[in-house]
Amino acid sequence: MKALANAPLDAEIIAVGSEMLTAGRVDTNSLYLTGELNNLGVEVVFKCVIGDQRDRLADAVHRALGRSAIVILSGGLGPTEDDVTREAVAQALGRQLIFDPAISAALEQRFARTKRKMSEVNKRQAFVLEGAGVLLNDRGTAPGQWIEASGSVAILLPGPPHELKSMFERECLPRLAQLVPRQAIRTAFLRVTGMPESDLDALISPVYKKYQNPVTTILAANGDLQVHLRARCSTVAEAEALLAEVTVPIEALLGDRLYSRTGDPLEVVVGNLLRQQQATVAVAESCTGGMLGARFTSTPGSSDYFLGGFITYSDSLKTALLGVSPETLQEFGAVSPETAEAMAVGARARTASTYAIAVTGIAGPAGGTGQKPVGLVYVAIAGAAGTLVVNRQFLGDRQRIRVFTTQMALDLLRRRLTGLA
Amino acid sequence: MKALANAPLDAEIIAVGSEMLTAGRVDTNSLYLTGELNNLGVEVVFKCVIGDQRDRLADAVHRALGRSAIVILSGGLGPTEDDVTREAVAQALGRQLIFDPAISAALEQRFARTKRKMSEVNKRQAFVLEGAGVLLNDRGTAPGQWIEASGSVAILLPGPPHELKSMFERECLPRLAQLVPRQAIRTAFLRVTGMPESDLDALISPVYKKYQNPVTTILAANGDLQVHLRARCSTVAEAEALLAEVTVPIEALLGDRLYSRTGDPLEVVVGNLLRQQQATVAVAESCTGGMLGARFTSTPGSSDYFLGGFITYSDSLKTALLGVSPETLQEFGAVSPETAEAMAVGARARTASTYAIAVTGIAGPAGGTGQKPVGLVYVAIAGAAGTLVVNRQFLGDRQRIRVFTTQMALDLLRRRLTGLA
Repeated sequence: MKALANAPLDAEIIAVGSEMLTAGRVDTNSLYLTGELNNLGVEVVFKCVIGDQRDRLADAVHRALGRSAIVILSGGLGPTEDDVTREAVAQALGRQLIFDPAISAALEQRFARTKRKMSEVNKRQAFVLEGAGVLLNDRGTAPGQWIEASGSVAILLPGPPHELKSMFERECLPRLAQLVPRQAIRTAFLRVTGMPESDLDALISPVYKKYQNPVTTILAANGDLQVHLRARCSTVAEAEALLAEVTVPIEALLGDRLYSRTGDPLEVVVGNLLRQQQATVAVAESCTGGMLGARFTSTPGSSDYFLGGFITYSDSLKTALLGVSPETLQEFGAVSPETAEAMAVGARARTASTYAIAVTGIAGPAGGTGQKPVGLVYVAIAGAAGTLVVNRQFLGDRQRIRVFTTQMALDLLRRRLTGLA
Repeated sequence: MKALANAPLDAEIIAVGSEMLTAGRVDTNSLYLTGELNNLGVEVVFKCVIGDQRDRLADAVHRALGRSAIVILSGGLGPTEDDVTREAVAQALGRQLIFDPAISAALEQRFARTKRKMSEVNKRQAFVLEGAGVLLNDRGTAPGQWIEASGSVAILLPGPPHELKSMFERECLPRLAQLVPRQAIRTAFLRVTGMPESDLDALISPVYKKYQNPVTTILAANGDLQVHLRARCSTVAEAEALLAEVTVPIEALLGDRLYSRTGDPLEVVVGNLLRQQQATVAVAESCTGGMLGARFTSTPGSSDYFLGGFITYSDSLKTALLGVSPETLQEFGAVSPETAEAMAVGARARTASTYAIAVTGIAGPAGGTGQKPVGLVYVAIAGAAGTLVVNRQFLGDRQRIRVFTTQMALDLLRRRLTGLA
């Protein structure tokens, strides 16, 4: 593999699977892999999606290995007949597939742990290409493979994104870092919430547009904005200095909308604040139906600060479980500042938490009125110092409104915990 | 183009542009085109993204035209030097590019309408391949091209999605409809849960492997399995008969693990059963922290049957909100059949629901013991006829264990509602 070490490297990514060629499916693995390869200084020059057809895949692999130093395949490593990646790469390289009893035994053990018997077909996953290194899968059954051939490397990874990511991080990044010419790359991840992507760009582009290096990317998803800045220099010190030169003025512009400098998601930032303040939180959810609790508990160790709470989707449960008075519901409605406040106060009292967050809104598609349209949401935070109620009008479909609501609720608690609200 | 008219047609899609190879960009054009082509009965068998490199693109076009009847390129039709699609296709087909004064004049007029002068470089957009038909662009400057060559057709479309869609709809769909043999496509979506993908495949592959048509695909995600069968025939009646021939024996093999014949997800199937039986449900969630409630409420109209419930992440809330006795927690632990049962019974009593589902388990990564490892989960369903408690041992990370648990809980309720459990 010495040939790899002297020049900037190119990579190609091949996604395998007929289901990936349907109108609803996006090859997200290639986006993740592109980001990681770019971080190493490797450019992705070609990517493709191929159905479960061995000959076509073998042809594509053969051509990719002929022109690029790194070829990553995702998918097609399952146990069934239509999982053709192993055979196709063997065909492309003219190598044998060899049964590895150790992998087969590990697979059998994995099945035994869940008290199931491994079916015969799973043994297909124990076949390894001649000369290949096996990449361990800690999240699923399909092992990956690392095959070097005439100055290039082919990397076979499983298709499910969480399996692929874990394997790539653990097993591939360290090996690739050894192959790739040394460059210092430093990245800053700023996370922001509470503004649209276009406003964010208008705010900070006067700064970042002055620089080709670092490369700045803005990603927006679920009401959450990420600014990635990637500086590529010949030394770490240079890269860090360059990054600071750009991020310091950007952070000043972002002000208190910046919630993370580390890339941590909002629920982790809020959880850390609660832990530092030895505070606890409970939830009372109507339109989000449990999504806010699910976000809090997505973080390991969240039992340090998250107690639990209530899902009060029906009005009668708002009264029975949280003590919202029927008069309040009658007079102001379930989606009102009064109900949100009563929910938060009730949840806090019943769980003895430091803070309680209540959410009530109209997620749609039905249920909106002229005065209270779909997307209207109230969030209340009750604490020792009183209850804060905030409302927002979101646009979009049911899922978007619900996700944006959890983002708004977490951000409101962040502001309260940091003295901003 | 008569050659196209006799057999099912395959298509390939090539997206051109280095910016499409970055980590944040998804080739949404190919998703749109796939949907439209599938509607015509045309299968997309390969798609790729290529940077602005003429030789590489020419090679890809040459190969695509050699194996597929329809090759659609998007992007690379702009006026600048790095827009290489025209030149690459010319090179692949060995044809000349010819300057078309009419296109150039139309471009000049377009600029004049916005009171701008056309720059010289825009004339590049007036070059058309020898023998090509020009596709009008009503939303931008780049005209498309339609080129037939040795039984195949190459279609050059602009990259911006709104330009591409408009051009494809107006200029391409009518022409393609004339080329494509009349076909009827019918699809069956079977959804299954409670078994690994490999067991499902071992069970049903003896049936579906006997058929090339319909094409059968198995998708697995989050403990949910989907079997897609797509039949392509010359009439609707034939396609439906063929589909029935294959799905009837598959459904018999799947038995009660088959939960949907329509493609509906499990929470919708369970919701419909509850609605039919005029029953309501409440939840009491520990390790899932609200995810089960979030799944129930992801469906519009779920307030018909979903009342709400409790997130009791801490032991003290299991006692305070659900009435689980401290002795039960002490003697058996929070993750035990006794606690699961008490949680379900408590939630049902406090919400007056027909059924209550309780979930308690060890999501990890910490908290596991030899006797109660990470991934051990108990689900209890309380109803008028008593309480059913089931346990499972899941593998994987925190997110996987939690998602699989919601799947298990919903399926258990489905079984209870249909008399299976």
